[in-house]
Amino acid sequence: MKINDNFLKIQSSYLFSNIAKKVNAYVAANPDKPIIRLGIGDVTRPLAGACIDAMHKAVDEMSNEKTFMGYPPEYGHKWLLDAINENDYKARGVELDNSEIFVSDGAKSDCGNIGDIFSTDNKVAVCDPVYPVYVDTNVMSGRSGDKTAEGWSNIYYMPCNAENNFLPELPKEKVDIIYLCFPNNPTGMAATKDELKKWVDYANENGAVILFDSAYEAFITEENVPHSIYEIEGAKSCAIEFRSFSKTAGFTGVRCGYTVVPHDIKVDGVELNALWARRQATKFNGVSYITQRAAEAVYSEEGKKQVREIIAYYQNNAKIIYNGLKECGFTVYGAVNSPYVWLKTPDGMSSWEFFDTLLENIQVVGTPGEGFGPSGEGYFRLTAFGSTENTIKAVERIKNYFAK
Amino acid sequence: MKINDNFLKIQSSYLFSNIAKKVNAYVAANPDKPIIRLGIGDVTRPLAGACIDAMHKAVDEMSNEKTFMGYPPEYGHKWLLDAINENDYKARGVELDNSEIFVSDGAKSDCGNIGDIFSTDNKVAVCDPVYPVYVDTNVMSGRSGDKTAEGWSNIYYMPCNAENNFLPELPKEKVDIIYLCFPNNPTGMAATKDELKKWVDYANENGAVILFDSAYEAFITEENVPHSIYEIEGAKSCAIEFRSFSKTAGFTGVRCGYTVVPHDIKVDGVELNALWARRQATKFNGVSYITQRAAEAVYSEEGKKQVREIIAYYQNNAKIIYNGLKECGFTVYGAVNSPYVWLKTPDGMSSWEFFDTLLENIQVVGTPGEGFGPSGEGYFRLTAFGSTENTIKAVERIKNYFAK
Repeated sequence: MKINDNFLKIQSSYLFSNIAKKVNAYVAANPDKPIIRLGIGDVTRPLAGACIDAMHKAVDEMSNEKTFMGYPPEYGHKWLLDAINENDYKARGVELDNSEIFVSDGAKSDCGNIGDIFSTDNKVAVCDPVYPVYVDTNVMSGRSGDKTAEGWSNIYYMPCNAENNFLPELPKEKVDIIYLCFPNNPTGMAATKDELKKWVDYANENGAVILFDSAYEAFITEENVPHSIYEIEGAKSCAIEFRSFSKTAGFTGVRCGYTVVPHDIKVDGVELNALWARRQATKFNGVSYITQRAAEAVYSEEGKKQVREIIAYYQNNAKIIYNGLKECGFTVYGAVNSPYVWLKTPDGMSSWEFFDTLLENIQVVGTPGEGFGPSGEGYFRLTAFGSTENTIKAVERIKNYFAK
Repeated sequence: MKINDNFLKIQSSYLFSNIAKKVNAYVAANPDKPIIRLGIGDVTRPLAGACIDAMHKAVDEMSNEKTFMGYPPEYGHKWLLDAINENDYKARGVELDNSEIFVSDGAKSDCGNIGDIFSTDNKVAVCDPVYPVYVDTNVMSGRSGDKTAEGWSNIYYMPCNAENNFLPELPKEKVDIIYLCFPNNPTGMAATKDELKKWVDYANENGAVILFDSAYEAFITEENVPHSIYEIEGAKSCAIEFRSFSKTAGFTGVRCGYTVVPHDIKVDGVELNALWARRQATKFNGVSYITQRAAEAVYSEEGKKQVREIIAYYQNNAKIIYNGLKECGFTVYGAVNSPYVWLKTPDGMSSWEFFDTLLENIQVVGTPGEGFGPSGEGYFRLTAFGSTENTIKAVERIKNYFAK
C-alpha cells in the first residue's frame, strides 16, 4: 500500500505538541520551578453552573431506559440548533435555516475536515501569521506545493504585521479558498464590518470561498466589529463560518462547536451545504447528548450571565497583560477584542529565543510567533486564559526580568 | 473555487439517513401505527451504573477550578489508555504500547478519516455486503473509480454469501487496503483465528494493510473467534484495528472509540503510526474528559459486570429473532457472535420490497441488504438492540404476517 506522501512534507508534530514537549522536558529537569502557562489557548475557569446542571441532568437521563439517548442526529439536536440560530444569528439580524448549521466536536476538527469537500486543485490564501491547522491540513491534502524558504510554494500568504495593522490585503493573484480568523488568532486583532465587506465582495466577484473562523467572537468589545461574517451583506453566498464553545464557554475539555454552510454557496448549481452534510453523515456520528445539553445551557438566561462573567474574567487578564507589558516598554497588540496579546520581541530577539528566555529564566510559557508562520517571526503570543493570580505573577516576572 | 467532484458520484445521502427519512415519512402519515425499529444498529439499554457514576463525578470536577480539565491529550488520557491496553489487549496476550492506541469520538469517524494517511492511488478491497462507510469514504477521496452496474470500477469486491458461509476469499488480483469487519456488519458472521491468519499472511506477503473493524467483539461467544486481530501472529505489521464503546457499552449517544496503529506497520521505513498521530493532532482535538471517564469505568470491576449483563440482554434478543424466524421458515444467519441477524428474503423478494412490506404491513423496520452492496440483494438485516419486549413483538408480527 502507498501512504499519502504529503504527510512527509510536514514536521512530524503539531506546533502545540512541540511546545508541550519542550515545556514537559523543562519541568522534568526543574521540578522545583513552577511554570506559568500562557502558551496554548486553553481555558482554566470551571464550567458555568448552568452547563454543569444540564450535564448532570443529561447523565441521569442516560441512566433510564425511558430517557436514554442513542445515536445523536448527525448534525445536532433540534433544540441546540434552535438555540444557536436564535441567539448567535437571529439576535444579530442574520436569518439562517437550521439545516445550514452543523454541530460538531469542535472548530479544529471542522476547520481541518472542511478540506474534504474541495478539490485539491484550489489556491489557498492564509494570513501570515496564522493558526497552523489551516496550513497543515492543506499540506496533508496536497494543496500546499513544496516547502521553500518563504513558506509553501502553492499557498498565498497575506502578511499581517504592524505596518498594515495586522489586517491582510486583498490578494494580487487569483485565490480560491481564503481562511480568515477574526478576532485573529494569534495577533488578537479584529476586523471591522467595512474591512470584512472588502473580503466578501472579493470572494463573490472571484468565485472564491471564505472560511471564516470566529472562535473568539465572545471577546469582541467594540461596536463596529461583527461577531459573524453573515452580518456582512453578501456573505451567505461565499462564506463558511466556524464557531466554537471552547472559548465562549470554556468547553476545551468538553468538545463542541459548529459550522455554518449556507445553502446559497454554490458551484455550478451544487450546494456546498449538501457536500458538507454528506461528509459529516459519512465520516462523523454526531456529538454526545450530554455535551449538546451543556451547549444548549450556554444559551439559557442563567448560562448567558455566567458565561459573560467568565469572559469578563479573561478580558480582565488580557488587560493586565497588555497594560503591564506596555508599561514595561513592550510594543503590544490585541487584547481589546481578544483573549490574545501579541507582542514584539525585544532587542530583535527571535521568537524562539524569546520563548526559551521566558521559560528558562522566569518559567513563563508563551507561543513563539514564528510557529504561526514567517511573518510571526519577531512576535510572541500570550493568552489571557490563565488565572488572574498567575497572570499578574507572570507579568510581574516579565517586568522584573526585563527591567534588569 | 472548485469542489471535490468525487462527492458528485455518490448518492446525496447516507444509507441510514435514507432509511430514517422513509420511516419518518411513514410515521407522519400513520401516527396511529407504532413502529418497531430493528434497523439501525443503535442501542436502547441505559448506560451501566458505573459509567453514570463516573460521569457525574467528572461533571463535578469540571465545576471546580482545582479539578477542571481543559484540552484533553490528543490521543486520550493515560488512565484510559492504560485501561484499554490492560483489558482489551494484555489480558488476551497482546502486547501494545500506549502510543499505539488513539482514543477518538468513535469508530465511524476513524474508519472514515483513516483514508487521509493513504495515497489516493491504492486499490481498496471490501467485503460485499459491507458497512457503507468503508466504500463511501473511498468514493469521496477518489479511490473508487466510477459507478458501474457491478459496483465501483476501482474497488475490489469480495462477495460474502451463503455459498462461502459469508467469509470472503483472498483477492485474485493485487489489492492494497483491505477492509475486514468481524464479527461482521451486516451479516453477523464471525471469522476464526485460522480464517484471519490467511488474511494476515496475505497482507504481509503483499505489502497490503488490513483495516480491521472489531466494533462487535463484545458479542463473541465462541472460543476460536479472536476479539482482536492482534491475537493473530504477524498482524502487528499489517493491521490497523478499530474499536468502539458504542456496542460494547451502549455509547452510541456518548461517542467514544479507539484505533490501534502498531509501530510495526511501515512503508519505506515510515510508520503509519506517526502519520495517524499527525493526522489526529492536526484535525482532531481529543475526546471530552467526561466521556473518557465513562469509558474508563467500563473497565472497572463493577462496570465490566454491568456491561456483560447488557450484552447478555441483547444476545438474548438476537436468539429470539434468530430462533423465531427460523421456526417461521426463514433462512437465517449471524446472531451467535453478533447482535445482527441476517436473513434471506422470502419468495425472491428484493431487499427493498421486503423493507417496504415489513414497514407498511407490520411496522417493523430493518435494513435492506442491498444498501450494503450488490451481494446484499436478497438479504435483510435485523438488529438485537431493541427492547426484549419489542423484539418479541416484532418477531410475532413477522410470524403472523408470513404464516398467512
